[in-house]
Amino acid sequence: MRTLTVDLGDRSYPIYIGSGIRHQKQLFRDAIHGKQVMIVTNTTVADIYLAELVALLGDEYQVDTCVLPDGEKYKTLATYEQIMSALLEAKHNRTTTVIALGGGVVGDMAGFAAATYQRGVPFIQVPTTLLSQVDSSVGGKTGVNHPLGKNMIGAFYQPQAVIIDTESLSSLPARELSAGMAEVIKYGLICDAPFFSWLEDNIDDLMTLDSEKITHAIYESCRAKAEVVAQDEKEGGIRAILNLGHTFGHAIETEMGYGNWLHGEAVAAGTVLAVDLSWRLGSLTESDVERSVNLLAKANLPVLPPKGMSREAFIERMLLDKKVLDGSLRLILLQALGDAYVTSDFAMEDFNACLDDAIEAASA
Amino acid sequence: MRTLTVDLGDRSYPIYIGSGIRHQKQLFRDAIHGKQVMIVTNTTVADIYLAELVALLGDEYQVDTCVLPDGEKYKTLATYEQIMSALLEAKHNRTTTVIALGGGVVGDMAGFAAATYQRGVPFIQVPTTLLSQVDSSVGGKTGVNHPLGKNMIGAFYQPQAVIIDTESLSSLPARELSAGMAEVIKYGLICDAPFFSWLEDNIDDLMTLDSEKITHAIYESCRAKAEVVAQDEKEGGIRAILNLGHTFGHAIETEMGYGNWLHGEAVAAGTVLAVDLSWRLGSLTESDVERSVNLLAKANLPVLPPKGMSREAFIERMLLDKKVLDGSLRLILLQALGDAYVTSDFAMEDFNACLDDAIEAASA
Repeated sequence: MRTLTVDLGDRSYPIYIGSGIRHQKQLFRDAIHGKQVMIVTNTTVADIYLAELVALLGDEYQVDTCVLPDGEKYKTLATYEQIMSALLEAKHNRTTTVIALGGGVVGDMAGFAAATYQRGVPFIQVPTTLLSQVDSSVGGKTGVNHPLGKNMIGAFYQPQAVIIDTESLSSLPARELSAGMAEVIKYGLICDAPFFSWLEDNIDDLMTLDSEKITHAIYESCRAKAEVVAQDEKEGGIRAILNLGHTFGHAIETEMGYGNWLHGEAVAAGTVLAVDLSWRLGSLTESDVERSVNLLAKANLPVLPPKGMSREAFIERMLLDKKVLDGSLRLILLQALGDAYVTSDFAMEDFNACLDDAIEAASA
Repeated sequence: MRTLTVDLGDRSYPIYIGSGIRHQKQLFRDAIHGKQVMIVTNTTVADIYLAELVALLGDEYQVDTCVLPDGEKYKTLATYEQIMSALLEAKHNRTTTVIALGGGVVGDMAGFAAATYQRGVPFIQVPTTLLSQVDSSVGGKTGVNHPLGKNMIGAFYQPQAVIIDTESLSSLPARELSAGMAEVIKYGLICDAPFFSWLEDNIDDLMTLDSEKITHAIYESCRAKAEVVAQDEKEGGIRAILNLGHTFGHAIETEMGYGNWLHGEAVAAGTVLAVDLSWRLGSLTESDVERSVNLLAKANLPVLPPKGMSREAFIERMLLDKKVLDGSLRLILLQALGDAYVTSDFAMEDFNACLDDAIEAASA
């Protein structure tokens, strides 16, 4: 097991990463302060992991459970209210601890419930997907969607601890493993060239879930994100580099309809566009682009936009993105492999050529 | 105008108190960071104060308004969602500022909306009732009710500024002015004996809204609360003394049905019980009790429990109060006028006698 401390002053917390650690009661005990525990999960995850967690904690705590329907479309205020009702019906008081057992949607909603139940109670993240392990573990973002926008309702709220059991990845569909790997590769690209090289050397072992290597990849991803977030907890500036590939990616996700392309798949295709544009602007070499594309491809991720998506569709969707300030399109680009920056300073000619070439390649 | 700074490190903010200051544009300008403003109010307050505030700010900012139905029964997640929808429909971004214009219910809901819109945007409190001016201005409590409990959903979130215009009290019903005065008197009782004496000397002028004196009373109340809250921002210990009279009071409120006795009225009767019990325990003199009762009575507040409410009803309701930890009833009592403490250490004999005598007096 490896332990990483996310350093946020009096809101600091540990991330534990290892194989089989969901059975280590002491990790939970250290993070639970009162006598009550509410485990929030979804129907899919509950079938596999809920009974054993209830059994682990049930002899020492009042353990109640709240099983939500599975899927992003249930990430709503109504589902959030369901968690609040479960807490109140089981008479949980201000010293209860909420445990989020599942992927990003469960973590975001349970975290928001913990942030706002009786004005805030402790919570523990037990992320079970690769994406949530390397993304939602760090950063304190919690919340739900509104019909008029994703993640529009929420709070910054830090967990007491994050417990990442790499064994839970064995129950993950292959497509979701790849989608998570897109974010792992992103960390190498934006801020850690040696990690990027390590990923190139070890991508095959990672895809077959070599326990030690996957632990290392998750550790390095969380460490990279923690470093960025520590500089910018409330998302004012530098934290934006975490969105490499995401503005292009969101355009793809919304154009295709949410859920048809997984978030990580859209980010992968978006990352290739950002890398390609960086090359056109003279910051990356042709070899840098090739290496990026090859690594994403080895993780079984798409490296081209969806067939038939036009340049106009990209531009229209991207201008609607919430990261557009005052109508100017800001992108995350690379100075070099391992060195990202935020800019609105690029020629539309290069931007258009980048999209056109990718669109042509996709249609071929 | 007087200014008080609530000292909470990087979440510190000013409270401005004075007559007519709702027209001072600079006070708002200093607290608004972006270009967008959402004024949240209710139908009653909107009729009197909304148009002039829109006019004050409308030439400089994008000003939108969200007018909620009036009343505690609308302090729900559904009404909160209405605020979120208003913000999204008018395309407010992360730099918007929410202004809460109204009493405690509006402040709590608008504050919770600000705390959770896009994970937190700035907000300004413009409390228009005496209760909200001396109570919700300080402490950062925001939230809504759940069918299973009051204020069960919410967050601690501090405003950018609080702008208290004492002129707005002239539009307040007399009963609500008295109810607010119950909390003002409370601050004298729990932590400020000189202020208590000052209130005794000036209660008549206060009830007729002498501008300078009401400004002073609000200032001293906010200062007292700020001092207590600064010691205990997240409500772990000492902050409990702010609940003098409230455990008895909540029992009265719920027994009578919410809204039949105003919160401040129930607190006044509850305060007399707490003062009386303190006398029975030997900490207060008979004269202290008389002075407390007289001051509350001069503010046109009830000093006896509701006719017909039994000792059993009190005890049952009080044991259901959320401040009961592990089944033991904790009360806020007085060591002396101006010096409150929290205790579970009192003889049930004294407690029962205190209730019985008051109940008998009420039925006489």
